[in-house]
Parts: sequence; C-alpha cells; structure tokens
Amino acid sequence: MRKNYLLTPGPTPLPPEVCEAQARPIIHHRTPQFQSVLKEVEEGLKYVFQTANDVFILTSSGTGAMEAAVVNLLSPGEAAITIQGGKFGERWTDICNSYGIKPEAIDVEWGKAVDPQEIQKKLKANPKIKAVFATLCETSTGVTNDIEKLGQVVKDSSAVLVVDAISGLGAIDLKTDAWSVDMCVSGSQKGLMLPPGLAFISTSKKAWALVLESKSPKYYFDLKEAKKALDKTDTAYTPAISLVMALNESLKMMRQDGMENIFSRHKKMADATRSAALALGLELFAPTAASDVVTSVKVPAGIDGEKLVKTMRDAYAVTIAGGQSELKGKVFRIAHMGYIEEFDIIVGIACLEKVLAQMGYKFNIGAGLRAAQEVFLK
Amino acid sequence: MRKNYLLTPGPTPLPPEVCEAQARPIIHHRTPQFQSVLKEVEEGLKYVFQTANDVFILTSSGTGAMEAAVVNLLSPGEAAITIQGGKFGERWTDICNSYGIKPEAIDVEWGKAVDPQEIQKKLKANPKIKAVFATLCETSTGVTNDIEKLGQVVKDSSAVLVVDAISGLGAIDLKTDAWSVDMCVSGSQKGLMLPPGLAFISTSKKAWALVLESKSPKYYFDLKEAKKALDKTDTAYTPAISLVMALNESLKMMRQDGMENIFSRHKKMADATRSAALALGLELFAPTAASDVVTSVKVPAGIDGEKLVKTMRDAYAVTIAGGQSELKGKVFRIAHMGYIEEFDIIVGIACLEKVLAQMGYKFNIGAGLRAAQEVFLK
Repeated sequence: MRKNYLLTPGPTPLPPEVCEAQARPIIHHRTPQFQSVLKEVEEGLKYVFQTANDVFILTSSGTGAMEAAVVNLLSPGEAAITIQGGKFGERWTDICNSYGIKPEAIDVEWGKAVDPQEIQKKLKANPKIKAVFATLCETSTGVTNDIEKLGQVVKDSSAVLVVDAISGLGAIDLKTDAWSVDMCVSGSQKGLMLPPGLAFISTSKKAWALVLESKSPKYYFDLKEAKKALDKTDTAYTPAISLVMALNESLKMMRQDGMENIFSRHKKMADATRSAALALGLELFAPTAASDVVTSVKVPAGIDGEKLVKTMRDAYAVTIAGGQSELKGKVFRIAHMGYIEEFDIIVGIACLEKVLAQMGYKFNIGAGLRAAQEVFLK
Repeated sequence: MRKNYLLTPGPTPLPPEVCEAQARPIIHHRTPQFQSVLKEVEEGLKYVFQTANDVFILTSSGTGAMEAAVVNLLSPGEAAITIQGGKFGERWTDICNSYGIKPEAIDVEWGKAVDPQEIQKKLKANPKIKAVFATLCETSTGVTNDIEKLGQVVKDSSAVLVVDAISGLGAIDLKTDAWSVDMCVSGSQKGLMLPPGLAFISTSKKAWALVLESKSPKYYFDLKEAKKALDKTDTAYTPAISLVMALNESLKMMRQDGMENIFSRHKKMADATRSAALALGLELFAPTAASDVVTSVKVPAGIDGEKLVKTMRDAYAVTIAGGQSELKGKVFRIAHMGYIEEFDIIVGIACLEKVLAQMGYKFNIGAGLRAAQEVFLK
C-alpha cells in the first residue's frame, strides 16, 4: 500500500472533479458545446486574474506564456528591466536575450524581495525602458515580491509591468487591474489546481498598444491572432481540449470558494508550515519575504538535503521539492498551494519529522506538528 | 439520450484507456516514476515514427512543432520551399514569413498531390534552398502527398525534408528514416488517439547539423534545450504530464496492434467511405490522391453544405467536418483516423444518408451503407 502526497510547487494535486473532467470523451473545439465552455472559462479567468481585460489561453507550459509576453511587447534592440531573484527571474533575462531585447538585469539576493525603489530609480535613469519583468512568487527561493508597490512605481513611467504569476496566481492576492499589472502570466499546474499544459496571459490597454507595435518575430505565440480568435470565442490553434474542460471545473470550484477564502487558507497553511519549521529548530531561507505558496527551509548542518527529500518521497510517498540551481542540497521546499489543505500540511510535517529523526537530527519529536496544529486552531 | 460520434480529422475519439490515464492523480515530472514513463514513451514514439533518431515531445499544438521545425533549421534570409496544397501547407509559408525566412511557395491545386519532379526542378534551379516543407495529409482537402518520392528527390540535394505529419502519422505509412524524412512533425489529437496538447518532432543527422547552425530567435521551442533534457530523460520545461501518461497508454495499444494492422484498418475504412460516397451519387473532392485518414466529398448541387454538417451534429450527434477557407460550404469531410473503426463509419454513412434524404437529395436509401458493407466484407 502506498498513498501519495504531493507537496511540490507545481504540479500541485488535482481535485477529483478535475481528474474526472479530463477523462470525459473528447469534444470538437469548433462547436457550440466547446464555445460555451470557453465563455465560462473566460469569465472564470477574469475573476481569478481580478481583471476586466482579456485573458488569453495558450497551450504550452508557463514558459511559453513568458515568451509570449516578451515577443509581443518588445522589438529587437529595445530595453527592459528583468528582476532576477532566483531561477525564474533569470528566465526573463534569458528569453529577452534570445530575442535580441536588451535586459537590464537587476540582481536581487536569493531569498530577498526586490526593492521597488530600485526599479523606480532605474526607470528614471533610463526612460527608454519599455517593460519591467517581475515575478510574483519566485518558486526557487520561496519569496513573494511586492507587486502592488511595483505597480505604483511602474504605472507612472512609460514602461509596462509584466508579472510572472505562474506560481501564486489563485493562491495569493494579485489584483491585476487595481495594482496596474499590464501583463499577468500564469500556468495551469499551480494555484489553478490543474495538470500542466495550459498557460494564460492578461493584457492591459497600455500593454496592448505595445503589442500592436512589436516587431519581434512570432507565430504560435502571436497575441494578435489570439485576440482575433478570442473575439469569436475561439482559440488561434487547436487548444488542449481536455485541459480546458478541467479548467472549467477548477474555476467553478474557485468561484464557489471565493478568492478571500482561498487566500486566507493559503496564508494559514504557510503560517503553520513556517511555525513548524521554526519549532523543529530549522531556519527559513526567506524570513523577510516568505511566500504563502511555498516555504523554503534551510537544510540543517550535518543533514544531506537531497537524501532528505528523496527519502520522504521514496520511503514514505510524500513528495516535497529540493533546492534548484545554486540552492541544490541547501534548502528543501514545501508547497501549500492549490488543492492542498491543512491535513496535507500535517502529513508533510509528520513525514519531515520522521525522516529528520531517522537521519539523526535532534529535535523534540512532535514539536513541528504541535506548532502547526496551534496555528490551525487559532 | 444523446450518444456522440466524432468523425472529425482532429480531435479524434479517445480510447477508454487514454481517458482513464488522464484522470489519474498527477505525479511530479522530475521523479523516477515519470522518467520511466518518458523512457517507454520515447521507445513507443520511435516505433510509430519509424525512426532510430530522437523524437522530442513539446507541450503545444501541432502548429508549435511546425514553428519549432522552421526556427530550429533556418536563419533569417535563408530560402526554403513550401508546398501549398491547402490550409496547412500555407501555414508553412506563413511561419517562414513570420521569421524572415524566404519561402518559395509551390502552389498545388487544392485536391491534388504535389508532383515531386517539380520540387526536384526547383531544388536544382536554386541550390541555396535549405529546406523543403511538405504535408503528409493535407487535412483541409483530404489529399495524401507521396512523401516517399519527395524523400528520394530531396535526399540528394543539400536541403532537408520536413514533413507535417500532424494528420496521418500513426494512421498511414510514413517511414521517417527509410524515406529520408529529416524532420517529421506530429500532434497528439489525430492518429495517436489523444487529446490535443502534445506535439512531436523527429530529427535526422542532416537536420541536426542545421539545428546547430540556425540563428533564428527561439526559446520555448529551442530543440537544443529539448535535446539536453531528453539526454537526461527529462523535458526542457514542465510537460503536460497527464497527456504524457495518456500517450504512454495509446502507444502501448498501437504497439500491440502493430503498424501494419493499423494501416490496413485505415485503408479499409477509407475505401468504404469513398465507396459509400460514390454509391450515393456524390463526388470525391480529391479522387486522384485521396487520403486514407480523411475523405473529402463535394457537396451536391442544391444542398447547403454547412447545414448538412450542422444537422448531422446538432440533430443526430454525429460530428463530421465542413470545408475550411475557400472550401467552406463546398465539401464535407469524414475522418477515419485513430480510434475509429468500421462500425463508426457505418454510423457516419447512416447519418449522412438520413440527413441527405431529409434535405431532399435523391438517392437509393441504403446504397451508401451497402457499398461500405461490401468493402468491409471483402
């Protein structure tokens, strides 16, 4: 008997309603039946994105939608700011470089959030900057950036603010319109409780003006084609139909739950996870900007971080994430995002305690569980 | 009660095994469990592609893989031949134009196959041509091109042969290696009996040499990154996990069936569909190069072609396809590809007869069914 628990920051577990929707017989995408699904989905996406603007659906991973943002907004030779505070912030820089766009990469110490004032200074120093590429939750470090303040800083410039909200949208607050986010990019396998394979992108009027001007080469990710199709309740190319059917189910669940409830559930799980880690004598990797979607914890001295994650997964079927790139072996990450609730966190902490104890780490057995339980009982 | 029959050239119906695989709890993609699936899938894809070379999996629609072929093989300003015998052939031209690649578009009359000798002449006349972009089955017209002969013509030139086999791979014969196809592009929702959302691309050594040289901008579709990942049994970006699980099931089914059986099943269904159409006094749109994956039939005089397709779908739940672009209202198309077997064709013909009779078209009731039955009894 093996009962699996998935506590990774993407993919996240699937509700049974989502599993079931994928398993239905396939329908054709150019039929009134599918169009009515697309209409519901569009309304649901606007609700989750907190936007009145179009949200385009792309069949790709989240990275595809990041590329779509870059190639639809900018032209070769133009300047942009990229905020690099981890692996995914670096991806903005890499995509810009691939398309001959000149990124001014702002290096942020891994584990810290970006200082919006630094961005303001950069924007004032170089009025040619056309876009600022930011990250809502930097999954690799477990940091949430202050998008509201970034929006205040960018909106008065001629630049647009683009936010990679792949990790975090639908789990923590991101008011796309109210916070002046011009393009919000997301993916299906995180807060939206779906398998990977769909990506989403919203566009403000300010962003759309750049889309119409951009000369970067593009075809599959051309948002002008996506817009033409959306206006006819269609998609430019054959969409991942079974995933769209599943999306419709997860969006219905999210609307029933309500964003405020969802956000407070995530906050509570994050608080509990952080409390548990501290109660075990562990140190948070990002104490000053800790994300409510994933908690990164430093691997304690004398413990093999990769072995810890591997043992939890292979011996006990509880999958958490290790560190990526320069954090490999140095942190482990417990996600509390999407279709995860407090008893999943209790299981995760229980398994963490069990394996830490087996590996010889000294702590009071049950201290993590108790700390988590105290948060949940508040 | 409404029992649906899907006879469209993508998406095609799903086997229950494929539906079930999608509905399983999601697993993480960077685990030994998923790696073992990827290994099986890679072997299965090589079998279906009839290649010993790598087959890359992309999370996108087939069009994404077409773009991947163009941007990985060529650089801006370089020349290529595109064969335009329908909507999908034109897509090659459009993609080339989007990336500053100069297509010499060969116009082929819709409903006819390309003459390989014409391509040979063009290649000799312009030795700078680096790639020939062709289509296995032009879904919009129901034509199959002679890829074997095209391969013979292209292999002695310095150009590579790229085949859009989105429609047709796994349904009709395409010997990627033996026929000197340098890049074979396909999608999931046709012969492979899956939902849309995955695309595939194989590369010969001749093609890979161009990939290493190409200067077209790219990121998400960069095959050098796909190759690095594949060599570690991984994917460059988070793949559509539930679709990959489903792919593993459909590939197992195809290996059990055997390609020869699959091809002869498709041929028989196509023969039956064509015989039925003729027996109803209808005319085939592509009599000289009729595809075994989809049959296009001319709408008879006095009949509203769009209404015919709509009535079959809305009144009787049998979905076939109408004409696209310049063929709108002029043809209808019945697919016999993927998880479709002879009794589905019988249902399709029965419904076609029923609606044609109701619309006032004169024919011997049952003549289509009888003609199909005679083919199946052979």
